[in-house]
Amino acid sequence: MNLEQLDAQIAELQAQRAKLLDAKNLQPSPCLKSGNREIVVIGGAGQLGRLFVTQFRQSGYVPHVVEKDDWQNSADLFASAALVLVAVPIHKTLEVIAQLPKLADDCVLADITSIKQKPVEAMLAVHDGPVVGLHPMFGPDANSFKAQTVIVSEGGQANGYSWFLKQLEAWGAQLRFTDAAEHDRAMAMIQVLRHFSTIAYGNHLMHESVDLAEITELSSPIYRLELAMVGRLFAQQPELYTEIIFSNKENLDMMRRYIQRFESLLDTVAADDKKAFQASFAEISAWFGDYAAQFLHESSEMLAYQRRLK
Amino acid sequence: MNLEQLDAQIAELQAQRAKLLDAKNLQPSPCLKSGNREIVVIGGAGQLGRLFVTQFRQSGYVPHVVEKDDWQNSADLFASAALVLVAVPIHKTLEVIAQLPKLADDCVLADITSIKQKPVEAMLAVHDGPVVGLHPMFGPDANSFKAQTVIVSEGGQANGYSWFLKQLEAWGAQLRFTDAAEHDRAMAMIQVLRHFSTIAYGNHLMHESVDLAEITELSSPIYRLELAMVGRLFAQQPELYTEIIFSNKENLDMMRRYIQRFESLLDTVAADDKKAFQASFAEISAWFGDYAAQFLHESSEMLAYQRRLK
Repeated sequence: MNLEQLDAQIAELQAQRAKLLDAKNLQPSPCLKSGNREIVVIGGAGQLGRLFVTQFRQSGYVPHVVEKDDWQNSADLFASAALVLVAVPIHKTLEVIAQLPKLADDCVLADITSIKQKPVEAMLAVHDGPVVGLHPMFGPDANSFKAQTVIVSEGGQANGYSWFLKQLEAWGAQLRFTDAAEHDRAMAMIQVLRHFSTIAYGNHLMHESVDLAEITELSSPIYRLELAMVGRLFAQQPELYTEIIFSNKENLDMMRRYIQRFESLLDTVAADDKKAFQASFAEISAWFGDYAAQFLHESSEMLAYQRRLK
Repeated sequence: MNLEQLDAQIAELQAQRAKLLDAKNLQPSPCLKSGNREIVVIGGAGQLGRLFVTQFRQSGYVPHVVEKDDWQNSADLFASAALVLVAVPIHKTLEVIAQLPKLADDCVLADITSIKQKPVEAMLAVHDGPVVGLHPMFGPDANSFKAQTVIVSEGGQANGYSWFLKQLEAWGAQLRFTDAAEHDRAMAMIQVLRHFSTIAYGNHLMHESVDLAEITELSSPIYRLELAMVGRLFAQQPELYTEIIFSNKENLDMMRRYIQRFESLLDTVAADDKKAFQASFAEISAWFGDYAAQFLHESSEMLAYQRRLK
């Protein structure tokens, strides 16, 4: 076989594979909760809420979407639900939790907000039953939980919500357990600083009147990917990013420290001090340790794939 | 066929494909220069220089590697060469060009440095024959020119070096022509700011005592990729990055403007001014235009691939 024939055959098999996967995803996962299977998803019309509703329905649960307007008429539903999942925008989460009506003692109360300490505390304050905070680590473009990371910050009465975590695993989610405070510290780096500096970088490109067409054309594969990682953010809605960045003012000091370090390093360039600059580089390399080589390997594999896409 | 069988068959075909590609890469490209085929690669023992030497040899040329020590004994070689390629580290390029002995009038003089304006000017100053500046846009891990971008900044007497550009294309390189000054302006964004802020970001992670193991474990696919793009830099030698960043002090002002913009945007967060922040976001989105959606699509494809690698 020549290259073209091989490529055609690989493409054909991959199309078959995609169909097979889709069919597999449509097969309902088992329902792991017997008895009362009614579930309330507050904000279930939102992007991530909708995914939960679909999955619950496919697995044989009876999910109810409750939005602001039908709150008053839902007292019975809240009183009998096996799970109440708060899936509203981040800036409304605490307010919605505070206004929850009385839930059954064995009802699981959970949220899926991008911060965890305050929501978990708020849920524990209003509910005596099982409480668990979740943070699904994927964007709205995902259409299943398969191989997706979901961070779990435990609230209380783990035995009461274990069926719900098992259900997430049955859908394919990979659970990672972490303390709510530790989660928020990690996310300050993972989300807040990263999103913010990406927005600042896009802002800079715009004000420098960079020619995007030219820069894309001239780019190395690695820079093209980096540019894509910046540009992709601006194809999305600003609300979530805004809320994540504005939700925790403690991160302001951390981001100001980033600026200071950026400036100090820039001073070594201004002073033409290559020795100091390379000493910093060596120190950071040592700190990254084995991760540096691992990251080089991972990203090189991705770049090789990107080249094949051309 | 089930999923496992399909995956096995796809893997088998991809292995065949890789073998076929390797075999293809080993086939010598035609030698496009008749007559005097002797070529001098100054710094040909370096990573990128070595790739040129290998390719020239496979195509039937007679490449000679000249390093600092054998400079004195190479006068005859320089006088008769069809091409002299300067492939020394960036901070030595101008010095090496200035010290070149007299070349034949039809000899092509070329360099492969990451900046272009000064080297092209320097080559034009010492050589009356064909002069061309190249910038291969790929890292030392590439083992061929296949599908790789090479930027060409024309010096003079294009007819004299057209055989050399055709040879690069025969090896699979994709040539992009740009004015030397324009090249340097674009690279200030593509290389200087990007590399520098990546180093500053790694420095910040270190000083914030971030737990890399935890952060990798908790990351979304997109952040894991971003972290990989930062960490990969520190698996490499600092010299090239240092020279690129230190080679052009005009970039200092541009990087200070980046800091100022970063701070202004951070001030909107400190002032809790979501409206101003979202207005900036909208302005940048509009500026990215169709590229935003294109970048989202490209990077999502890569992330889907990354998930399959798991």
